Parts: sequence; structure tokens; C-alpha cells
Amino acid sequence: MPTPLLTNLSRCAVHTQTTKPWSLAQCIDVYREAGITGISVWRDVIAPVGAAEAGRMLRDAGMTVPALVRGGFFAAADATARAAALDENRRCIDEAREVGAEMVVLVVGAVPGMPLAEARKQVTEGIAGVLGHAEGAGVKLAIEPLHPMYAADRSCINRMAEARRVCEQLQNPLVGIAVDVYHVWWDPDLEAEIALAGRQKTLFAFHVCDWRVNTRNLLTDRGLMGDGCIDIPTIRGWVERAGFDGFNEVEVFSEQYWAMDQREYLGRITRAYLTHV
Amino acid sequence: MPTPLLTNLSRCAVHTQTTKPWSLAQCIDVYREAGITGISVWRDVIAPVGAAEAGRMLRDAGMTVPALVRGGFFAAADATARAAALDENRRCIDEAREVGAEMVVLVVGAVPGMPLAEARKQVTEGIAGVLGHAEGAGVKLAIEPLHPMYAADRSCINRMAEARRVCEQLQNPLVGIAVDVYHVWWDPDLEAEIALAGRQKTLFAFHVCDWRVNTRNLLTDRGLMGDGCIDIPTIRGWVERAGFDGFNEVEVFSEQYWAMDQREYLGRITRAYLTHV
Repeated sequence: MPTPLLTNLSRCAVHTQTTKPWSLAQCIDVYREAGITGISVWRDVIAPVGAAEAGRMLRDAGMTVPALVRGGFFAAADATARAAALDENRRCIDEAREVGAEMVVLVVGAVPGMPLAEARKQVTEGIAGVLGHAEGAGVKLAIEPLHPMYAADRSCINRMAEARRVCEQLQNPLVGIAVDVYHVWWDPDLEAEIALAGRQKTLFAFHVCDWRVNTRNLLTDRGLMGDGCIDIPTIRGWVERAGFDGFNEVEVFSEQYWAMDQREYLGRITRAYLTHV
Repeated sequence: MPTPLLTNLSRCAVHTQTTKPWSLAQCIDVYREAGITGISVWRDVIAPVGAAEAGRMLRDAGMTVPALVRGGFFAAADATARAAALDENRRCIDEAREVGAEMVVLVVGAVPGMPLAEARKQVTEGIAGVLGHAEGAGVKLAIEPLHPMYAADRSCINRMAEARRVCEQLQNPLVGIAVDVYHVWWDPDLEAEIALAGRQKTLFAFHVCDWRVNTRNLLTDRGLMGDGCIDIPTIRGWVERAGFDGFNEVEVFSEQYWAMDQREYLGRITRAYLTHV
């Protein structure tokens, strides 16, 4: 049976990077006007005001913050760089606590030429290294598997299976997975891995956008839901049957959409959310 | 122990599409001059002369032809289109026989919005539908898993595991797998799947090129071996330990290299082959 479409925006969140031209204040104001109460906050919109002030703004507006985006990049060629990555991730965790984010999304990193298995080992050690800090702050860490086209330099974790293996090694209730349809829609194991993540209590986040059939750029040509070929309602059905009841987070990087009037674009986002998620 | 580099070009083949500006006659002449005796022939260079004449040219020059490229595209929205695809694949097989190619490489196809599992079912049926014709011609069929970034419209088979499942269903010595490092280098199961393909006698072809870390285009920005991040000697070692002793086929699609003087480019190809494969 097809998954019924969503009938309201109560579980809709938008990533600030989706409306990149806007400041945090603009995002908060216009998302609220549009009836969106979830916002995942990227570090670039926090920087100008600071995390404490950002947290006040978000709380005053009654926004819920699923995630601070993004930490990670643990894999590195030398120990000094790996230690610096741990420090940076501790700062991310502190910021997440200050803005009231439930989790930090981790883009785990990769080093061109380093075997991916070695990079995954470094990533596991890196997450282990900041877990105490995350526990102190009460902030979750969500490993986001990235599409294999980012395996060279952005992420050595390209399927849910590898994210799961890190979770299984670390066995900590604060370590889980962010499922982004853009990265994993093609994976033949996706349905089974989502169900398994549900049983393992590691299904922390669900991100939506679309894969444009003629993708023009590897980084900044994501589609809005409905622009592409991903059957998002089916994947949302899997995620919900696995027990996930958090936000459906809209995360679109698109030069095309960033060039639009962002209010008009937000209208498109809410319509796309109600017709294609 | 690292895999020793190759010391000569005896197992080097080049795909005509690598030197796209050249006709078949030019490819044959200049590859031979360069000491390359293997050539995988794309249909666009056969078309102007016809398969019979192309076969004569290749035999007269003493070239070995691992593959005709490419058949496939079995998945389609309706039965008429699927039947047309079978006809087209039978023509490919006939051409392969005429040019003396050992195999037809199959880019199996995908239909935007069609579930990938359904598309794979259609692909399996499609290959089954032309197997008799392949047997009559004595031509192998090599399923090439394509990178997940081509899952929308080019290939519903994006890992060796799914290619293997088709082989296991069809159980025919003429059906196997073409391993192209560009498409599969990131796959955590690659080493195990290559070993398994060796045991199952389905390791038909090995294609080399490189993944540029900052890939500018999804289709035509492949790197020459050494330009990117793929550890080709390690993968070649796995392939050879699995029993493969065929050609290492250089298949690069690159606007950048197509714009170069192609003789100079062929010199770079042979140097890259001897230093990075």
C-alpha cells in the first residue's frame, strides 16, 4: 500500500542551508510565517551572532532544532590534524547544546588516496574520542552516509551498512544515523538497513530532497522533492515503520533555487513537502 | 605486499571512446604504432564502415578485441520498448561476432521513477531473452555495474553484488561481469565480490581510468590513471588473484583529454598505464 502523503507541516523542518541567502533571523521569521517550526541550523548562520544568541533567537521563536550541521571530518593524514578535528567537533557539540539542537550531523570525512577502510577506522576512533563530550552536553551524534560520489574526499561512509557498523562498535545511545534520501536512495539494502536501524534505535534523522535525472553538478544541483526520481513517500514509509517519528528535514543545495526569490522558493518547498514527501 | 606495476603493454587495450575524435582506422593505426594491440570498439566508430569491414580492418591489423561497447538498456516502461531493446542487443551481438569481439559490454539501463528492483528484474529477463542469440554467435555478455550516480537513468545495477545476482539467476557461462574501477572503487564489498566472481567464473573484463577528486561533470570528466584517488594496482591485484588474465582496458571519457592532440594523449595513456595501473 502506498504511504499516504503528509497532510500538514507539523513534522517539517528546513535546513538553513536550503535558503542559503538568508541570515538566521530571516530563516526563523519566514519559516514561522510559512508554518514551519523545525529548523536545522548550519554553522555559517550561527557564526555572525554566536551560539548563545542564536539559541535565544530560536527559543524565543519557539523553533525546534533537530540538528546542528555539521561536524565530522575525522579522517586525516596525520595525528595533529586528527586531534584538531576532535577539538572542532567538541566546539560543534557545544554549539549544538547552546542552540538547543538534538544532534550534530556528522559528515565523517575521507582523504584522497587513503584506503576507505582505514578512514572508517579513524572515523570510529574520532567519534569515540568526542563521545564523552557529547554525553556531557546531552547531544546526539548522527552519522550521515554520503553518496558514493563523495567517497574521494568527503565521506568514507557511503551506505547505511557502514554507518551501522560504526554504531555497533561504539554501542552508545548517543550514536546513530541520519538518513538522507539523496545519498542512499539507490542502495539495494536500504529498506533492510532502515528496519535494522529502527531495531537498533539508531534512526536519528530523515532528510529529504530529490535526485535530478540530469544532475549538472555534484555538489549544488539537488532537486526539490518532486524534481527528480526518488520515491520519497516509500522511503518515508520504511522510516516510519521502523519507528521514526521525528522531523522530515528539507535539505536542498541548489544554485538554481538559491538564485530565486527565497520567499517564493519557501512556498514551493511547502507545496513540494505536501505533495512529494 | 603491493601489486608490482606492469612492465609492458602486452595486456593493454584502449576503448575507442577514449580517443573519441579518431575514426576506427586512426585508432587502429596509432594504437599499433604505440605498441597497443588490444582495442575495445564502440559502435559509433563501426557505424561509418559497417561491422564486416571493421572486422576485416581489425583482423588485418592483428588487433585483439576484448569488447564491443555497448549493449543493454533493457529496462523500459512498456513491452514494445523492451522488445525493441532485445532486437538492438541482438544487433550488438551480431556486430560483436563480425568484429571478432569476445564480449558485448552491457550498460543495463534504468528508468527514472521505476523501482530499481523492478528494473533489475526486467534486465534479467532481457539478458535471458538474448542469451540464445549470444550462444549462436559465441559472444559473451558482460554486465557492467555503473556508479550509483547513474542509477536514475543509466543502470539499475550499481554494485558487483547485483550483477552477481543476475549471473546466479541465469547460470550461463556466457554471462559475466565487467569490473570498471571508476564505478566500483568505493564499494566496501569490492574485494570479496571480485574473489567470488573469480570462483564463479564471471570475471570477464577489467576497465581502468581514475576518479578525479574534484569531478566537474558526471559523464565526461574521468581521469587518466594517476589523475585521481583510485588505488588501481591494488584492485588489479584482487582481479588477478581471482584468476583474471585478460586485458586491462583503458576507458576514459574526458572533454579535457578529447580536446588535446590525440597522439600526445596516447603517449600519456601508455605512460599512465605503466606507472599507475
